[in-house]
Amino acid sequence: MRTITWNDDAQKVEMIDQRLLPQEFMINAYEQYQEVADAIRAMVIRGAPAIGAAGAFGIALAAYQSKASTTAALIEDLEEAGAFLNKARPTAVNLAWAVRRMLKETVVFDGSVDELRDHLLASAKAIADEDVEINKRLSEFGAALIEDGDHIVHHCNTGALATVDWGTALGVIRMAQEQGKKIHVFVDETRPRLQGARLTAWELEQYGIPYDIITDGASGYLMRRGLVQKAIFGADRVAANGDVANKIGTYMLALAAYDNGIPAFAAFPMSTVDFELESGNMIPIEERDEAEVLQLQLLGKRVTPGNASARNFAFDVTPARLVSAWITEKGVIYPPFTANIKAAMAE
Amino acid sequence: MRTITWNDDAQKVEMIDQRLLPQEFMINAYEQYQEVADAIRAMVIRGAPAIGAAGAFGIALAAYQSKASTTAALIEDLEEAGAFLNKARPTAVNLAWAVRRMLKETVVFDGSVDELRDHLLASAKAIADEDVEINKRLSEFGAALIEDGDHIVHHCNTGALATVDWGTALGVIRMAQEQGKKIHVFVDETRPRLQGARLTAWELEQYGIPYDIITDGASGYLMRRGLVQKAIFGADRVAANGDVANKIGTYMLALAAYDNGIPAFAAFPMSTVDFELESGNMIPIEERDEAEVLQLQLLGKRVTPGNASARNFAFDVTPARLVSAWITEKGVIYPPFTANIKAAMAE
Repeated sequence: MRTITWNDDAQKVEMIDQRLLPQEFMINAYEQYQEVADAIRAMVIRGAPAIGAAGAFGIALAAYQSKASTTAALIEDLEEAGAFLNKARPTAVNLAWAVRRMLKETVVFDGSVDELRDHLLASAKAIADEDVEINKRLSEFGAALIEDGDHIVHHCNTGALATVDWGTALGVIRMAQEQGKKIHVFVDETRPRLQGARLTAWELEQYGIPYDIITDGASGYLMRRGLVQKAIFGADRVAANGDVANKIGTYMLALAAYDNGIPAFAAFPMSTVDFELESGNMIPIEERDEAEVLQLQLLGKRVTPGNASARNFAFDVTPARLVSAWITEKGVIYPPFTANIKAAMAE
Repeated sequence: MRTITWNDDAQKVEMIDQRLLPQEFMINAYEQYQEVADAIRAMVIRGAPAIGAAGAFGIALAAYQSKASTTAALIEDLEEAGAFLNKARPTAVNLAWAVRRMLKETVVFDGSVDELRDHLLASAKAIADEDVEINKRLSEFGAALIEDGDHIVHHCNTGALATVDWGTALGVIRMAQEQGKKIHVFVDETRPRLQGARLTAWELEQYGIPYDIITDGASGYLMRRGLVQKAIFGADRVAANGDVANKIGTYMLALAAYDNGIPAFAAFPMSTVDFELESGNMIPIEERDEAEVLQLQLLGKRVTPGNASARNFAFDVTPARLVSAWITEKGVIYPPFTANIKAAMAE
């Protein structure tokens, strides 16, 4: 089952509600692009590649919602929908990338309004299918870096749930296991939304890959003790110089890996690279509701004082100097990234 | 009200139950040293200086529990009690330090069995009183390092609750505020026991010091954004070379501070230094029950999968190269620590 799919009978986009996992497995269906934007914002669906696909299906929904009778009027409606969808979450560039790619289809398309609607749906489905292929391809490249017996620290969730299917960084781990390598994963719990403790742990159980959950502050100690051989994570936006924006905590993980001579790999599709940004300092970092930090409970009770306040930046930026390599569908790219990525793209 | 006190009427040691704060304020009373060991293990009382005082009062209780009719027999019972108390938690050296200091009193004491019992109680009270004085003294030294307007990242809880009263790293912040400096604290929530989100937040509210709780993986990003001027934490055991064992997550915090040119201060009484250990690699690091990591709840439900497992190291070791200075009752000690600490102790 994919994280996000199109239901042809119902003409709706369906998503696994990731807020409820692993306690409850529920599918939500949406028939309006505004609902899709809300679902992205509320993190029903999350993970850069997955919200890219959600953006594409959002545009397809908008095409069917539109009352336009000319392609010009339809395109106008779609541009409005695209701007609305783009605002749902600011950091992951895949959302804007998918919306832009969908809108580009309208420019080259030659046909009736209804044909354009169907063409856009087909395009969204193609983006979703491609995501799975790309993830498997990058996972093949990445798995070659993983050795039998590795203990790997993994941050956030980058598995099937963070993508349409298969996963990026977690996809690399799955692929290594499928190749017969024995892997053990230290799962960063990934506060505040606990994507590691909830989603990555749940996925690893299904893949039969042994793991232990650790708190986000613990990986450095494990590395100093010699218990870790690799660190791997995804990306929400990568700047042209190689800086990687990813889930909050990634920078400190990469720093600990660097301090201990342990490779830190970022795995992502090329659609995550924002070639227009010279450096990671220009990546917009989403600040979310403080409630996500404060609502933590133990024994059924909230633990923070009633008047407590919090800051809740959802992402951080890891400077390229701390990233050992990019794992992409174009291959493993080593520093200096600026030069090597150009070469990889030119192939 | 002190974290730990002796109730003369009841002949019991009383402690604030820190597991329940900030939701409930409850005092537990103990009349057996074995109960004190259990309370230390279960973290009714925690924080290196506070568990030192608990160890001292534990020995006083053991003296009254003992049926011995000669001082030699009493000393034998106390040595057994001391060994039992020492086993409660392995990392903080203050526990062993206080027990050893109490047992030394028996060697030099000249008097009856009952007089020795009373002398030991007086010694435990003296250790507790001294702790408060020492904390205030080190806080005076530390406050000189804090500037008006500083935003300070603080890890775990090092306040009145981690000591008999006043605090170490948090004591420095309190003292700076009492000197009229405007301070804002970024409170690391400090997974898994959440001493920051629960105890430090609660103390800061009482002192009227503004704060925001952050997740443990967030301080690095705040530093890169220029939002932080200092990092400060306590210590559970410090090796002769300056390596600092402290609550898990401290190493990654110190690393982030170092990477951003931000001073990272460790504040602790000299009783935390274990001069017999050449390096921090020799400090025993407690591994606690995985349930502390796994029992996290959101919306009244446990978030981790039912079969999940975890690793739960309670402390880590920050190498001396990442520590900008020690803040102690002997003054602020800068690197090279090995040489400068000897000079400070000789004064």
